Amino acid sequence: MIAEIITVGTELLMGNILNTNAEFLSQKCATLGIRVLYHQSVGDNFDRLKSTVELAVSRSKLVIVSGGLGPTLDDITREGVAAAISGELIKSEAVEKDLRAYFKSCGREMTDNNLRQAMVIQGAVVVDNPNGTAPGMIIEHKGTTIMLLPGPPVELKPMFIGAMTEYIKKNLNRTIFSKILRLYDVSESLTESRIMDILKAQSNPTVAIYAKTGELSIRISAMAENNEQAMGLIEPVERSLRERLGDSIYSDMEDDSLAAHVLSVLRSRGRTLSVAESCTGGMLASALVDISGASDVFMSGIVCYSNRAKEELLKIKPQRLMKYGAVSEETAVDMVEGLIRVTGSSAGIAITGIAGPDGGSPEKPIGLVYISSYYRGDISVRQYNFRGSRENIRRSAVTYALIQLKKQITDVDEHSCKKYKHRVSATRIEKQPKS
Amino acid sequence: MIAEIITVGTELLMGNILNTNAEFLSQKCATLGIRVLYHQSVGDNFDRLKSTVELAVSRSKLVIVSGGLGPTLDDITREGVAAAISGELIKSEAVEKDLRAYFKSCGREMTDNNLRQAMVIQGAVVVDNPNGTAPGMIIEHKGTTIMLLPGPPVELKPMFIGAMTEYIKKNLNRTIFSKILRLYDVSESLTESRIMDILKAQSNPTVAIYAKTGELSIRISAMAENNEQAMGLIEPVERSLRERLGDSIYSDMEDDSLAAHVLSVLRSRGRTLSVAESCTGGMLASALVDISGASDVFMSGIVCYSNRAKEELLKIKPQRLMKYGAVSEETAVDMVEGLIRVTGSSAGIAITGIAGPDGGSPEKPIGLVYISSYYRGDISVRQYNFRGSRENIRRSAVTYALIQLKKQITDVDEHSCKKYKHRVSATRIEKQPKS
Repeated sequence: MIAEIITVGTELLMGNILNTNAEFLSQKCATLGIRVLYHQSVGDNFDRLKSTVELAVSRSKLVIVSGGLGPTLDDITREGVAAAISGELIKSEAVEKDLRAYFKSCGREMTDNNLRQAMVIQGAVVVDNPNGTAPGMIIEHKGTTIMLLPGPPVELKPMFIGAMTEYIKKNLNRTIFSKILRLYDVSESLTESRIMDILKAQSNPTVAIYAKTGELSIRISAMAENNEQAMGLIEPVERSLRERLGDSIYSDMEDDSLAAHVLSVLRSRGRTLSVAESCTGGMLASALVDISGASDVFMSGIVCYSNRAKEELLKIKPQRLMKYGAVSEETAVDMVEGLIRVTGSSAGIAITGIAGPDGGSPEKPIGLVYISSYYRGDISVRQYNFRGSRENIRRSAVTYALIQLKKQITDVDEHSCKKYKHRVSATRIEKQPKS
Repeated sequence: MIAEIITVGTELLMGNILNTNAEFLSQKCATLGIRVLYHQSVGDNFDRLKSTVELAVSRSKLVIVSGGLGPTLDDITREGVAAAISGELIKSEAVEKDLRAYFKSCGREMTDNNLRQAMVIQGAVVVDNPNGTAPGMIIEHKGTTIMLLPGPPVELKPMFIGAMTEYIKKNLNRTIFSKILRLYDVSESLTESRIMDILKAQSNPTVAIYAKTGELSIRISAMAENNEQAMGLIEPVERSLRERLGDSIYSDMEDDSLAAHVLSVLRSRGRTLSVAESCTGGMLASALVDISGASDVFMSGIVCYSNRAKEELLKIKPQRLMKYGAVSEETAVDMVEGLIRVTGSSAGIAITGIAGPDGGSPEKPIGLVYISSYYRGDISVRQYNFRGSRENIRRSAVTYALIQLKKQITDVDEHSCKKYKHRVSATRIEKQPKS
């Protein structure tokens, strides 16, 4: 099915807000196997909205319109869409009743303006909005489905995921099922080239790559008559992807992230984590605390931005700091050792580097970052050279710090596991001659 | 002048990336006094791009097209735009020379694909791209100016701010001058209602409000024959805005933020700052470190997410923590006192709260946050009740922590200043009778 997204609001055209609704709706359509071919944004203007909707209806089978359903006179989406399809606006008694109940429940007075929200396009399916006062609408018009949703993301998202998605699935008479693979420590272009044939061959299931610093996710979505059939379509594609990219896949959970993954790996091993940060200055700690339920693993963070803080909070010796400099392999190791001593945590990460835009030199250029990590007595330290803005360098350092610790955990546990197996088998060998 | 922005790229329609280019270009156009009436996004498809550009050229005086200028076969913006205006693509010897020099300088081989980037639309002004290989273009076509820019923001932004803006200003034969007012601790709707008449009356200068959590900025932009004239137009509007909103305006600097402002206020007073964070978990420290040059004021941060970390790193007494609970006024005060003791900084902020989604109770609901701040021996502690997601609650806490410290600095310094004045004037009064 071919779709198009229209976002309404002068604030978009003024650059006051980012168009996150268009991104969200596009992602959801991709997951539903719907091809979005156009985005349009238009201001709160009747004539321009009308012609924009006319164009969309003339070329797309699904037109999703968001924004402009509020109570003020600026909000003209109802009128504009009705005019574009020569529809009538009528008052919905049911919506009016809901509105009156809503205003009563929160003790606010309802103005005549608010009553505008009870006007619906004749023939529309009215969609309840539990998070706001503007109901959504679904209209079938000459073979095209038009969906109207409120603009605030807190209202739009649940409405699209709920009633709108249900309507689409029912109309398609198909189930859509999707699976995500999460990868780390890979570049988008390299991954793309390794699976180019799969990407090119895709139709059902579809395969889409989403990239962010140091991380990638691949979503496989299949459309079928039922879930089993869809899973059957996904399975061989997933297998090929795992064969080629297996080493980099760290998770296939929907609601996951690298930080959540590292926390859950540590949790399953009964470990606790603390971090010491210089150039990232709390960004790593913040990424960990961002995960709900982090508190049973993540203990503490020390942001030692100044040398004095490194000396006082991490007990690093001033003479060593002076000798090697704050951005050095030695200081990174001293930081993580001090961190473990001070906090008593059983795993740790320390980051020190030059995020720029000042402070670089030929020997220690901007982007030079040392990351040390500690796990079960093992200390690993690595030098990185990141590129881009101060923000970008800090963000990269956070991602690669998590990757480094995750790899270290695997290495140490596998290594000691092998050692253990070795010991057992050696014992057996020793015993064998005796038996 | 009426403008329209076309962003090209299938990744936009798949929801793989947010359309930050449309936001950036819209903001810059608003500052230049240009009215953007439409955004369109279209995939890397010749026919659809062609018809999109045709529509734009038929209704707008300035059409800005970004993306799809790369070297691969997917990149069809050159061809699509040329077709839309019945233009010819010709090879630019100058661009080819630049391309060859570029590839030689970075030791990479130049493929035939790369040569596609030397193709330009006949009659176009070719715009140099110091940050990438795809040059920009400006084409005058039947009274409409068409601008082509590369998609990567690191290439697009400097090109638009530089050559494209210069071209627009020259063509407009006008200067555009703008001024920003930064406000804190205000709501957008309240501010809007207080200056509604100014917002409604605006034409030249224009007045635009940009909001984010706890902060607002207002941009006044004037178009005139020269800077003096433009400043003359801005001055009375700025004066009215300051009269009505003066208390909330903290800065009128272009390159400023609340975190930068608090750092600079502390810097000018020779103070240092440390922070202790529980629920924000490093987000405040990170916002401070985000400011280049923070290191002379911002010393350290302690992320004490667990109770044990509060006891060990901030030396809070376990029995007090047990008695009052981690999220309490008393613990917030203990945290900031411990922080100042441990770090020796001369200003401090401590945050403790319940960010959710779990951990709330009827007595201590999700969103309850205590913030304590320390400045010159004075401790201030406040209770906040924030709303929204975990992310939102944490973000609000960071903003209001900065606002709280900023207000405390003003209060303490004004108060002690008044005391000082009072002492001086009292002395004078005492002396007066004698003279």
